[in-house]
Amino acid sequence: MSAVKLEEYRERIRSELDAVVDFWLKYSHDSVHGGFFTCIGRDGTVYDELKYVWLQGRQVWMYCRLYRTMERFHRPEILQAAKAGGAFLRKFARVSSGGSSQWKCAFCLTRDGKTVKIQRTIFSECFYILAMDELSRVTGDKDMQLEAEQMMQQLIFWVREDPSGLGRPQLPGDAPTNSMAVPMMLLCLVQQLTEGRGQEVVQKYRELGSWCVQQILQHIPDCPLGTWCLIITFFLLCNWIQRDGTAILESVSPEGAELPGCQGRLQNPGHALEAGWFLLQFSAERGDEELQRTAVDKFVELPYQSGWDKEHGGLFYFLDVDGHCPTQQLEWSMKLWWPHCEALIAFLMAYSQTKKPELLDRFSQVYEYIFSHFPDAKNGEWFGYLTQEGKVALDFKGGPFKGKNIFEGSSMFLAACTCVSVFWMI
Amino acid sequence: MSAVKLEEYRERIRSELDAVVDFWLKYSHDSVHGGFFTCIGRDGTVYDELKYVWLQGRQVWMYCRLYRTMERFHRPEILQAAKAGGAFLRKFARVSSGGSSQWKCAFCLTRDGKTVKIQRTIFSECFYILAMDELSRVTGDKDMQLEAEQMMQQLIFWVREDPSGLGRPQLPGDAPTNSMAVPMMLLCLVQQLTEGRGQEVVQKYRELGSWCVQQILQHIPDCPLGTWCLIITFFLLCNWIQRDGTAILESVSPEGAELPGCQGRLQNPGHALEAGWFLLQFSAERGDEELQRTAVDKFVELPYQSGWDKEHGGLFYFLDVDGHCPTQQLEWSMKLWWPHCEALIAFLMAYSQTKKPELLDRFSQVYEYIFSHFPDAKNGEWFGYLTQEGKVALDFKGGPFKGKNIFEGSSMFLAACTCVSVFWMI
Repeated sequence: MSAVKLEEYRERIRSELDAVVDFWLKYSHDSVHGGFFTCIGRDGTVYDELKYVWLQGRQVWMYCRLYRTMERFHRPEILQAAKAGGAFLRKFARVSSGGSSQWKCAFCLTRDGKTVKIQRTIFSECFYILAMDELSRVTGDKDMQLEAEQMMQQLIFWVREDPSGLGRPQLPGDAPTNSMAVPMMLLCLVQQLTEGRGQEVVQKYRELGSWCVQQILQHIPDCPLGTWCLIITFFLLCNWIQRDGTAILESVSPEGAELPGCQGRLQNPGHALEAGWFLLQFSAERGDEELQRTAVDKFVELPYQSGWDKEHGGLFYFLDVDGHCPTQQLEWSMKLWWPHCEALIAFLMAYSQTKKPELLDRFSQVYEYIFSHFPDAKNGEWFGYLTQEGKVALDFKGGPFKGKNIFEGSSMFLAACTCVSVFWMI
Repeated sequence: MSAVKLEEYRERIRSELDAVVDFWLKYSHDSVHGGFFTCIGRDGTVYDELKYVWLQGRQVWMYCRLYRTMERFHRPEILQAAKAGGAFLRKFARVSSGGSSQWKCAFCLTRDGKTVKIQRTIFSECFYILAMDELSRVTGDKDMQLEAEQMMQQLIFWVREDPSGLGRPQLPGDAPTNSMAVPMMLLCLVQQLTEGRGQEVVQKYRELGSWCVQQILQHIPDCPLGTWCLIITFFLLCNWIQRDGTAILESVSPEGAELPGCQGRLQNPGHALEAGWFLLQFSAERGDEELQRTAVDKFVELPYQSGWDKEHGGLFYFLDVDGHCPTQQLEWSMKLWWPHCEALIAFLMAYSQTKKPELLDRFSQVYEYIFSHFPDAKNGEWFGYLTQEGKVALDFKGGPFKGKNIFEGSSMFLAACTCVSVFWMI
């Protein structure tokens, strides 16, 4: 690939990031109640005033990150908006139902901050931590950093010791699960909390980082129960499938064994790719070449191989590793913006670390799909949800759950940064 | 429409019902642990052994109903399968977590009956009641009838007095809602529990039936806050939309007012049509002509008008009454089997009560869409989920949530019965 081509990519990504930031600066701020509108239609219209906490946290994080690390975004209105979003989060996101749930965050709030919904998972809290930590970096407010770390301790307790505080009853048929999203998000938080901090903080989370990586690696099933199990299984001629490391599964048992049924066979290529670049970052920090190889081979190449739609292009949202139809996800064949953002950065990061030209070719393929499908030339920003064939299926710019949001600009942002370094390497 | 054409429809529906019943008799019975497999692939293969309680209850109901009311299904193996399914339900579906939840049912069980998931809604319980009541009719077992009625009392308490036993915390921003599914299902249960029973039972549920109807009618928004509100609103030039009875909304306030945001604008044409034929049944029982007119005009015609896809045919799954893109439902534009079944029976029932020829034309249109899209000519049964354009999007025959299941044969079954009567009227 020519340097000219890469420079062209970099310029397009740069201008796209500018346009996306402008869109959210223009349409999402609630000057009356604070915080951000997150349900924004095709043309910028707010179609629902509900405020989703994941997206509040992501927007604060994104503004701060841009302000802190890229000169052209080091503007007072961006800092001001981040602070206002942070104040709204601190005032309303944490729900005080007493007892062990004092650190629980809401999932959805009314425009004026009343709790609408609380999820029995850890993800609102994750995005709260991201927001607080990044905000503490641009404001120098140590209280925010402390709050992020205290919330993190709560998360670690829920994930590694006792999940009962999340409010989900333990049921006899509901087997414990290692869900990819959990160690992946915790690893992301470790990277956030430790980046550029002193050795004390780095040491504090060192073991947790390694644990997250080990948990993520369990999602490559080979012989999860050991050689003896394989031998016994073989002789019993049972249906156990020895996948031999050829797939990434979204959910496995806490021991890394394949779970029965649809849950056990589910693949989410976007998540695997996202885990891939988290692992690449981690391997670079620790100088772990074996982990780097695993990240590239298993978490970047494999999900692309299994997840890319050879007929229509783009990455499937969900797949069943045995080729059944995914059943819990009616939208399994849709093409969503975020797996493509994850793929973009994963391939570029993988290339920048390995210099393998085929990784740059994949980057180019994902880039072409993205820019010929997702941007809305008329009103700015991107569409988030396409049909399998690549037609716009839902035309809003921000939605309640994982709506197209500025946070996924983070991939764009990272890709933009990485693109610069790749450019200079060639 | 000619009598020949109608007879042709009747024969096709009759043979389709036979084929669907055969499919489930052949592939869904679990002879080891009892109950029914509900996750069944395109060719009849069980792709997940989890047992979903909605579908266990529906299958018991369907077998009993067929056995009891149609001579060709009055076969010992059907009765036996219904009883075995009922025994599995009674043994495992009710979860005993003590206290007020003693009547709560699980949503999902393992193959051997361990609880996997409990929903904080009333629907597993609804299908449990349907199963027990219908089973009591074919077996003569009074205990089952009593159990159905006791569960019904619990439901009524949750819906009309105190929902806290369902386990969902009341949150300050989560406004009380009249969700169409609730009064609709309760009305269905009233019709089930009272059909052919003595006056004592009929009287017991009489007021509840009327309450359900009144709750359903609240989903036609006109001037929900009264004339004064309209006048004030007009003068204040605010954005309140006076829909003037031109739409059925899925969720309204307990007073029938439109709710803010996406939730308030959501339309589910299949649900509206389903409510339509429940109302038609009710109006026939009570001899209420005004209700009949409302049912036809508002709950049968309107959802068809707004919900039929004029470009590709078929009924949309969800719509936003103001034309925004539905955002909570990535699958909004898909064509599902069940809204079409509801439409089939709604139009036929509406025609049989009113003799308006245009209703028979609509029936015909829905019929043509169904039989040119949903049946799987190769392996039997129907596909359940099509893209907007009518291509098979998910190819399984039974799925975990509202998978294509024999219960929706109930519409087929009712349509078959009704078709007979329509045929004789012409």
